[in-house]
Amino acid sequence: MEQEQQKPYVIGLDLGGTNSVFGIVDRRGSIIATTSVKTQEQNDVEVYVDNCCTALKKIIEEVGGIEKIQAMGIGAPDANYYTGIIDNPANLPWKGEIPLAKMFSDRLGIPVALTNDANAAAIGEMAYGAAKGMKNFIMITLGTGVGSGIVVNGQVVYGSDGFAGELGHVIVDKSSEARSCGCGRKGCLETYCSATGVARTAQMIVSSSERPTLLRNIPLDEITSKDVAIAASQGDEVAKEIFEFTGKILGEACADFAAFSSPEAFIFFGGLTKAGDLLMDPIKKAYDENVLFLYKNKAQMIVSELDDAGAAVLGASALGWEL
Amino acid sequence: MEQEQQKPYVIGLDLGGTNSVFGIVDRRGSIIATTSVKTQEQNDVEVYVDNCCTALKKIIEEVGGIEKIQAMGIGAPDANYYTGIIDNPANLPWKGEIPLAKMFSDRLGIPVALTNDANAAAIGEMAYGAAKGMKNFIMITLGTGVGSGIVVNGQVVYGSDGFAGELGHVIVDKSSEARSCGCGRKGCLETYCSATGVARTAQMIVSSSERPTLLRNIPLDEITSKDVAIAASQGDEVAKEIFEFTGKILGEACADFAAFSSPEAFIFFGGLTKAGDLLMDPIKKAYDENVLFLYKNKAQMIVSELDDAGAAVLGASALGWEL
Repeated sequence: MEQEQQKPYVIGLDLGGTNSVFGIVDRRGSIIATTSVKTQEQNDVEVYVDNCCTALKKIIEEVGGIEKIQAMGIGAPDANYYTGIIDNPANLPWKGEIPLAKMFSDRLGIPVALTNDANAAAIGEMAYGAAKGMKNFIMITLGTGVGSGIVVNGQVVYGSDGFAGELGHVIVDKSSEARSCGCGRKGCLETYCSATGVARTAQMIVSSSERPTLLRNIPLDEITSKDVAIAASQGDEVAKEIFEFTGKILGEACADFAAFSSPEAFIFFGGLTKAGDLLMDPIKKAYDENVLFLYKNKAQMIVSELDDAGAAVLGASALGWEL
Repeated sequence: MEQEQQKPYVIGLDLGGTNSVFGIVDRRGSIIATTSVKTQEQNDVEVYVDNCCTALKKIIEEVGGIEKIQAMGIGAPDANYYTGIIDNPANLPWKGEIPLAKMFSDRLGIPVALTNDANAAAIGEMAYGAAKGMKNFIMITLGTGVGSGIVVNGQVVYGSDGFAGELGHVIVDKSSEARSCGCGRKGCLETYCSATGVARTAQMIVSSSERPTLLRNIPLDEITSKDVAIAASQGDEVAKEIFEFTGKILGEACADFAAFSSPEAFIFFGGLTKAGDLLMDPIKKAYDENVLFLYKNKAQMIVSELDDAGAAVLGASALGWEL
């Protein structure tokens, strides 16, 4: 039993719509072996899992065999930790309820758990990153959408059904001009503070004013959040205002989140955080100006320390240590 | 040790600005003895605690002595569970940091813990009320203010500092007409959905229109939420609209709270819930219309089963069972 707890490695799987990236990770959070399999066009999930296990077996042998592996964690969209099921994933090639944790566990003979990307990121941050030793924090992932992983008393909040922690879908604009969200509602945080939301803001500002900006050099519907970040870093005033607008909305939302769980930190992760202080300064400013007096000057606002390439795999792998 | 766990009673203290009400409570949630002491004008907290213990000792003897008592729980404003301190209470006669848990524990020789009123209500609901067996729910107290007690994985969420769960101070109106809140900010949920908030709504509607309503029989600045409930129950259209307005704001707010912890129930407690379906129907309607598809038709919206007179004492006492 004691020896079981000493197994040196876990497997992490970052399951994306295009690729499935595997890493074997040690207790320090170093990825010591890696492989990947295409997700796209793998229409039969049984064949897909078989292909994954074939690829995995090679790197498992490299590190000394399956008896060195404690468990496997999967970070995936629409994943439910309680059931181990991926439920009708919008961006994966499979329909219905996919019991992916069990499918991997049956083939590999080790415990397997899955959770959504943002929860995996939060667990990774606790195991290897900026949240080491923290019991109460909120992870906000700023990618194509806005995701969140909430940790209370050292545990990820999964709620009654496994789907808790969708702070990207808190309503931040109730006005008639609120933006439509992919979820079918209007005014969600994600419509403003995701990479897509920043691009929408840019397109609106560029098309509705005559102000000079580097962003006019790009066809309107091709402007991305990355373009805005590049322009802002070159001193473009319009681009800087776009980040101020985005950060203000996010900081105000975080002030409300504090009233829920009074976290010791908000940790931001994902593409948008590359904008650095252009985004973080307005977040901090809006947070300080809006948070209830009880919480003032308490929560840190920090950018994830995990490097982008490996972070999703690391996060998923960290789930393995909890099994 | 085993015998210690078999002690049949806990003490609950509901510490209010006017009175301090004590109850000795058994494991079923029956209050078997009760006493009270004035809080108001007890300017020396040492004398106050001495008076409390003198009153308590009588009822402790009645139930068989202190060796029958497992612990004591206190529900109080501005109370911090982690520290056992009441911190600069606005509505109590003492200033500074009052280590009330320790003061009672030293005198009585039993473990004592304290928490704020809304958290105590949530714990009481878990121990004796509608939340028996629930691991994830949100208690909303609708009194002079709006309080909340959030339970995740069977534990009250205290956050990093002991002050988590102030959902009455989530901002629900960012417009220029947002109402001023006692916390110094504008647009807090509490400015609309507390008893005071309902009275404000009534005063606004009565003074800004000519519509006939029973509420005109009352001097404008004396209209209370109770008056509105009485008028509504008599079929007064304006009064019913006031509850619809209140319930809509509260239901929309709860839809956002679901994105945080996906609770299996929202439990409403306090004076305003006496309005019954006049309030609950619009809450449910707004919740259903606004909640993210993931959470639809999941959470129950229920009114506390604990009777008003004893509920605060019961809630506080339930904290004792956790020690």
